[in-house]
Amino acid sequence: MSFAPATRQKDMSKVRAHISISLDGYVAGPNQTQEEPLGAGGEQLHEWMFTLKAWLEPHGEPGGEDNASNAVVVEANDNVGAEIMGRGKFGPADRGSWGDEPWRGWWGEDPPFHKPVFVVTHHEREPLTLSDTTFTFVTDGIESALAEAREAAGDKDVFIGGGAAIINQYLAAGLLDELELHVVPILLGGGERLFDGVGPEVKLEQVRVVDAPGVTHLKYRVVK
Amino acid sequence: MSFAPATRQKDMSKVRAHISISLDGYVAGPNQTQEEPLGAGGEQLHEWMFTLKAWLEPHGEPGGEDNASNAVVVEANDNVGAEIMGRGKFGPADRGSWGDEPWRGWWGEDPPFHKPVFVVTHHEREPLTLSDTTFTFVTDGIESALAEAREAAGDKDVFIGGGAAIINQYLAAGLLDELELHVVPILLGGGERLFDGVGPEVKLEQVRVVDAPGVTHLKYRVVK
Repeated sequence: MSFAPATRQKDMSKVRAHISISLDGYVAGPNQTQEEPLGAGGEQLHEWMFTLKAWLEPHGEPGGEDNASNAVVVEANDNVGAEIMGRGKFGPADRGSWGDEPWRGWWGEDPPFHKPVFVVTHHEREPLTLSDTTFTFVTDGIESALAEAREAAGDKDVFIGGGAAIINQYLAAGLLDELELHVVPILLGGGERLFDGVGPEVKLEQVRVVDAPGVTHLKYRVVK
Repeated sequence: MSFAPATRQKDMSKVRAHISISLDGYVAGPNQTQEEPLGAGGEQLHEWMFTLKAWLEPHGEPGGEDNASNAVVVEANDNVGAEIMGRGKFGPADRGSWGDEPWRGWWGEDPPFHKPVFVVTHHEREPLTLSDTTFTFVTDGIESALAEAREAAGDKDVFIGGGAAIINQYLAAGLLDELELHVVPILLGGGERLFDGVGPEVKLEQVRVVDAPGVTHLKYRVVK
């Protein structure tokens, strides 16, 4: 038996999301501001990641831990050809129209994406290129953003990078293939909830569980 | 080195809870009624358990599966000397005063507890004994119920049997030692939420993760 590798890869191109979440279901804490974009306590959601080799490398830092979480992050970032994010993730915290000196993201002049990024927003804007990342602003909805991202990704996967609102929209629309949750053992008590507005019509199948220091990785496939 | 086993057991007596929870954080679905006490879709939360040897045995049924979940349930039920439950779990669905023919629980004349059960309620009532289970009704709050349950449990642990409201109260009051979540890959979209009213002041530590068919078991220790 033989198969054409290109065709097979094309078939396997997926729309994936992975996100850190508190045990009480929040992906950001309450009171998100320009100084605290992840809300009160929200930074704790990502502490498990900051020391990993797979986190430090795309940020241009050497070293880092190579534990069970590292393998999960390497896998999550592998074969991703484009990212879609919500306006909340791109920023700034007060959103609204772009103004005269438009916001250039939280990540400085060399963002860690290194791939095309599509920002879903209500406010039109020309693409912004910073180093090897180009941010394209899409104003006609999540399906249009996905079509553009798929085109840019080619045979590779599309990553829905958050926040909660945009992942919830893709989930509810039946457009997500895989969802991995990095469950952190903290309670935030408020903030931005994953799964808000998503209901029982979305069916999931448990794929894999990874127990790592200070975090549990739960991976699910969306059943179509 | 020697130690007195009785003293050591006494020190180790814990207040524990374990409960099935949907991926979106509900331990019962929306619209709980007398016919559907777990709300719309809520029965699915427990399907992973119904086929287990450790589930069937206390219900007087032979056989059953002996998989990774079975070991978790055996451990969860081991060394438990008393259970505390909320009025919602005891029933009936409409709660309120007991009336002339008081409700005797959902479990028939031979309930599967086989140990003293303390029901936290606003409505006074004499104890009810069914087979080898005695239900004692406690009207002066969760601390009083815990004192009674500890007394009844002796050197053994006290199990907080749910629903969400009573577990949340014990968590928020700093009275819980261990919490195990059986995470089921379904979205209920509404219902009774675990962690409602519990906030960041409660600190948890990840103890153990078990990947089993159709469910993931996440065990946490409450840091005092």
